[in-house]
Amino acid sequence: MPHISLPEHLPGITGLLEYSQETAKPIRDLTQLLLRGDNTLSQGERELIATIVSHRNGCVFCTNAHTAATDLLLGETETCEIMKQDIDQMPVSDKMKALLKIASLVQISGKAVTPAAVELAKSFGATDAEIHDTVLIAALFCLYNRYVDGMATFTPDPQSGFYQQLGERIVNHGYQRLPQGYDHLKKS
Amino acid sequence: MPHISLPEHLPGITGLLEYSQETAKPIRDLTQLLLRGDNTLSQGERELIATIVSHRNGCVFCTNAHTAATDLLLGETETCEIMKQDIDQMPVSDKMKALLKIASLVQISGKAVTPAAVELAKSFGATDAEIHDTVLIAALFCLYNRYVDGMATFTPDPQSGFYQQLGERIVNHGYQRLPQGYDHLKKS
Repeated sequence: MPHISLPEHLPGITGLLEYSQETAKPIRDLTQLLLRGDNTLSQGERELIATIVSHRNGCVFCTNAHTAATDLLLGETETCEIMKQDIDQMPVSDKMKALLKIASLVQISGKAVTPAAVELAKSFGATDAEIHDTVLIAALFCLYNRYVDGMATFTPDPQSGFYQQLGERIVNHGYQRLPQGYDHLKKS
Repeated sequence: MPHISLPEHLPGITGLLEYSQETAKPIRDLTQLLLRGDNTLSQGERELIATIVSHRNGCVFCTNAHTAATDLLLGETETCEIMKQDIDQMPVSDKMKALLKIASLVQISGKAVTPAAVELAKSFGATDAEIHDTVLIAALFCLYNRYVDGMATFTPDPQSGFYQQLGERIVNHGYQRLPQGYDHLKKS
């Protein structure tokens, strides 16, 4: 049960963004820019960063939601599954593995990000902007995961179809608030 | 040395917000709303939350900056000092102590926030909105601390006067980007 009164039909982050719409606006804007804005990292690669951080933070709602979004963007479910076990075994570029390792260090602490981890990413061609965005996306999901779990929001059953629907919503519509008439997409 | 090229005269978060101005806008907006918007928690109380989370994350830049801001708002330096040692000994209300303990739990993990910690705050009169804002401010500073330290930004010497100047800037001007002509306030 959530620690405060939240709209019951809106689980996880969705209820919080409705509860506090004023703060939701910049949170949505920041997420839209980082995960959907112009970037040399693909949307799928950026969703992988969101997923690994949420997974390492043990945030079931965010992990399921961003796994669903990543799977849709990549067109398969294997990469996310392997990532959660061992980044080195993923069928992605060496650059992407190095960036996901940086994101995993950010999940622990900003101070855990070593010059060696950053140099490794640079040696595989990662740009300053890609390193910056990886760190900021990872930091943003440390915010989200704490917001969602710190308020003890409702976590739907993974078998309910909710996350597949939410994944489709964020792949097709991004992170901005949906206009009236799309509300059914946010319901469990 | 920062992990990427950042403006040398702008340490800590200040250089990052100039490096990536597009993402800086919603980050500034969210901070302004949470720390300076209308709220039943005073600005000093909200800066205490920012300070305890930054301190527990070991982020020297953010801890010094928000300690300076809090000290200015409270008109004394003792409360912050005591908080870093033992929240229970602080000369603040029982409600505020309970909220600072919730913030300290959020620093560890969203999952660390127990119903008992929330009930304690409610028993001392904390509202749903105050609990929400405490969790979100704490989560936001988990983002900031990871952004600042994850990029290995420059941390000025506490004796340099930099943090006093930055504290005055955020107390007097808030978290929005300063207009042209105020740039000297952001320099070390």
